[in-house]
Amino acid sequence: MMTNLQPKSHKIVILAEGSFGVLESKTATVLVRYLPDNIVGVIDSTNAGKDVSEVIEIGKGIPILRSLSDAIEFRPTMLAIGIAPPGGELPDEWRSIICDAIQSGLHVMSGLHHFLSEDVELMEMAEKHNVILWDVRKPPDVLPIATCKAADVDSTVILTVGSDCRVGKMLSGIEITKEARTRGINAEFCPTGQNGIMVWGWGIAIDAVVSDFTAGASEEIVLEGAKWHDLLIVEGQGSLVHPGYSGVTLSLLHGSMPDAMIFCHQPSREIVARYSVPLPHITEMISHYELLTAPIKPAKVIGIALNCYDLSEAEAEEAIYSVERETGLPATDVVRFGAEKLVDAIQQYLR
Amino acid sequence: MMTNLQPKSHKIVILAEGSFGVLESKTATVLVRYLPDNIVGVIDSTNAGKDVSEVIEIGKGIPILRSLSDAIEFRPTMLAIGIAPPGGELPDEWRSIICDAIQSGLHVMSGLHHFLSEDVELMEMAEKHNVILWDVRKPPDVLPIATCKAADVDSTVILTVGSDCRVGKMLSGIEITKEARTRGINAEFCPTGQNGIMVWGWGIAIDAVVSDFTAGASEEIVLEGAKWHDLLIVEGQGSLVHPGYSGVTLSLLHGSMPDAMIFCHQPSREIVARYSVPLPHITEMISHYELLTAPIKPAKVIGIALNCYDLSEAEAEEAIYSVERETGLPATDVVRFGAEKLVDAIQQYLR
Repeated sequence: MMTNLQPKSHKIVILAEGSFGVLESKTATVLVRYLPDNIVGVIDSTNAGKDVSEVIEIGKGIPILRSLSDAIEFRPTMLAIGIAPPGGELPDEWRSIICDAIQSGLHVMSGLHHFLSEDVELMEMAEKHNVILWDVRKPPDVLPIATCKAADVDSTVILTVGSDCRVGKMLSGIEITKEARTRGINAEFCPTGQNGIMVWGWGIAIDAVVSDFTAGASEEIVLEGAKWHDLLIVEGQGSLVHPGYSGVTLSLLHGSMPDAMIFCHQPSREIVARYSVPLPHITEMISHYELLTAPIKPAKVIGIALNCYDLSEAEAEEAIYSVERETGLPATDVVRFGAEKLVDAIQQYLR
Repeated sequence: MMTNLQPKSHKIVILAEGSFGVLESKTATVLVRYLPDNIVGVIDSTNAGKDVSEVIEIGKGIPILRSLSDAIEFRPTMLAIGIAPPGGELPDEWRSIICDAIQSGLHVMSGLHHFLSEDVELMEMAEKHNVILWDVRKPPDVLPIATCKAADVDSTVILTVGSDCRVGKMLSGIEITKEARTRGINAEFCPTGQNGIMVWGWGIAIDAVVSDFTAGASEEIVLEGAKWHDLLIVEGQGSLVHPGYSGVTLSLLHGSMPDAMIFCHQPSREIVARYSVPLPHITEMISHYELLTAPIKPAKVIGIALNCYDLSEAEAEEAIYSVERETGLPATDVVRFGAEKLVDAIQQYLR
């Protein structure tokens, strides 16, 4: 289910015109991080000529290009839309770039709310040039209302939850999955958002699902992952204190029915991003998650993933030490110090 | 916004074939309760010949009919689909009845997930016969991500919350609104579900909104109501402990940003309906709602609406007394004993 292109088998050019390296191009950054060997270049005329690593510290050797035509010499097979703006609309100025890509025979992978595959002009063009327009956010046509079936799977289910958007729920999930696999555990990452789906090649973008079925979609992801894997790391979304997305968060919490949770947080973040809502203390946020699982299927937070990208190494170590002391839970920054501690905690839950 | 037919100005025949009086025909019951003067008959061949009041204790004088053709003599102008099954699909056997209604010149009002207005065959027929197919669940084409704007309205906002689906969140909201109006308060009921929209003539069915925008839709409803009213009673949805719908509940809680809440509960209910999830104690459920509002805009539960339809009068009085003692809050059964106590509590919050 849930996919029709495998990004890992393509040569990808990323469209991030005008915004590479800023918050809005999170998709581009994620693709560079996890599919570096597949990325032939990033289009952003405002940074053209630089190496990707000069802008985002990863992706050494990947060029930033002025335009799509500059990318053609690298023989890409896919254009990835590297932006995820609030609301998800397609910027007008990008439309012609997408048309050019289709006419050059490139598949297009998009995480926008505006579905390319429902755009008559683009679809006609895609059919003519025999390419696929893959809207990674487009949910399956039929989804159930959640039935608590996810509680019955044989796999151990871990959900990454968090204090806010963009604190590392996807990244921690992937790093935990990779670390578990190096230990010989049959682990799978279960993507629930567009970036995770692009990187991992399957999943459902639950924030694009009609709200009656959002928990049901979360359940489907777990049931699918459990067919072949012993350990599922489900990508969390949003936060229980996020004014816009808290409902998505709770649907995922109740639909995926985790055995345990990893709490993700950015120590330097004091308010919900883009809102003036102060974040409660981390122990309070953790207790919210545990409280809301209790009536349905109790689950504890068993580890903490701190996103310390904006701290020095000494500050990061201090933040980790401090949160371990306050919560009594193992903590780490998975990018800086690896996910070992978290997988140690998770292994105790393996059936 | 949000409507194109005013049910109060129509003569309505309700389709509830095979299921009138059972849980699945909640829509039919609600229409009989709140628009009795507009209902010319209910179609259900399994109860044909009876009076509506013989089946559901209200609606005296409204006939139950064998078929649509039996209804025509009452000169209806609208067919209302009186069913709301989980999943919301259109039962095959009802399709031909809808076709007959359209061909007889009746508008059709539907709360199904399957949108009649996106059904090519039905739409062509409707255009030919100059009638409107009103999908009350169909959300507006453009909705925002919530921005916390609902916190800034001048109106007082009250949200009905609850322990489960079908415990009286809509009904309490309507009864509170009516009682407030008899006291001269410029109050408005703000429907968030299909039944409320059918009865009240406006609103957004937030469970049909893509989950990224569900809190935003809730915000829109409050902003709209606040244009003309001092007191808004927002219809709650689901429950924070409902495995399928909890995300809808939390989106509404955070999007509508109430000043205070009325908690709705059925004393005889011990598990979440259709699930094997035991309901926590009422004080615990109340604390969940208050806890989750606290970080964004703190709101307290200030009154309790008990649905005692399955209790004797003495049992209902005992249940009310008992919950008042346990919570320290005013409680009532709005159908049996009126909403006065709740409006007393709400009046203290009027600005």
